[in-house]
Amino acid sequence: MKTIQNLDDFLDFAWVQISRGKADKKSPARHPTFITSSTDYPNARTLVMRQCDRENDQIEFHTDTESYKMLSLRENSHAGIHIWLPKVNLQIQMNVDVDVKNGDITIPYWNNVPASSRIAYGTIPLPGTVIKNPFDYEYTPDQKRFAVLICHIQTIQLLLLGHKHIRAKFKKETNWQGEWLSP
Amino acid sequence: MKTIQNLDDFLDFAWVQISRGKADKKSPARHPTFITSSTDYPNARTLVMRQCDRENDQIEFHTDTESYKMLSLRENSHAGIHIWLPKVNLQIQMNVDVDVKNGDITIPYWNNVPASSRIAYGTIPLPGTVIKNPFDYEYTPDQKRFAVLICHIQTIQLLLLGHKHIRAKFKKETNWQGEWLSP
Repeated sequence: MKTIQNLDDFLDFAWVQISRGKADKKSPARHPTFITSSTDYPNARTLVMRQCDRENDQIEFHTDTESYKMLSLRENSHAGIHIWLPKVNLQIQMNVDVDVKNGDITIPYWNNVPASSRIAYGTIPLPGTVIKNPFDYEYTPDQKRFAVLICHIQTIQLLLLGHKHIRAKFKKETNWQGEWLSP
Repeated sequence: MKTIQNLDDFLDFAWVQISRGKADKKSPARHPTFITSSTDYPNARTLVMRQCDRENDQIEFHTDTESYKMLSLRENSHAGIHIWLPKVNLQIQMNVDVDVKNGDITIPYWNNVPASSRIAYGTIPLPGTVIKNPFDYEYTPDQKRFAVLICHIQTIQLLLLGHKHIRAKFKKETNWQGEWLSP
């Protein structure tokens, strides 16, 4: 178990792990779970972390404008990010406010998306449509179907499992000054 | 990539993976993400799968009665379970209705919880309480603070990533007959 001396250490340790999500394709932080609300059941899905930026408290994901998560975000832009890192026994939970960008504003982002990844934006028929056979769909990459989700991090809660667990919460509104919590 | 011949094959494959969560401590299915709603931000946390039962469409978790998830479940017993299996490129999403058991009814369950695990139920001060130092708490195992969450599975949605992805949805109300979906 990593030895954590103080609250700032703990947050630094978490950000090292989050940042590995961008740099290291094998890190579980590469594939966070993105959680949205709904009037019936809350929804969660694995997404690829596209950017993370501690300076600006942001994490970036990409999605198809016609995906179910876009519908959920239109109803409620308050979402969650969850990362579980089994090797270091660390759980990272974030509350985020999501700014959805689509249309012409995404063109500079789209230009940086490799052709092999663009196929994820523009499937016909629309994602979630019932089809007769598993491969009854086509990839038709389309910048108009491409959305960038900028997640503005509001809180980070950390739980490090060990002989005795340690838990803390950090809030943007207090400039990321943390508090220890009973686990 | 696993070759899936038909919808029943696909659901069988997913249940093999889910069942490994009970048998294999190294399987990611051992630690699903459990998702609850909230009036502000949706919440997700890693839990240990205690039981899974395909016959009865159930998954079982244990928790402290004073945890935040219990508060969320009192407001809305509709929850989600998310499992991402990177080795087989399979995502499993479930909508579940949660039946919370606590009090004397949990005694038979409690008797099967090893002493080393009982410390998770009964921390003083209560989970989430702000404390001055990271270890300012005590483990006081208490059967009265132990709750069993019986998750009644209503839907299972599967996404298998491959050269071409395949996606399907299965509902309890149609006796788990599936439908292919555009991914």
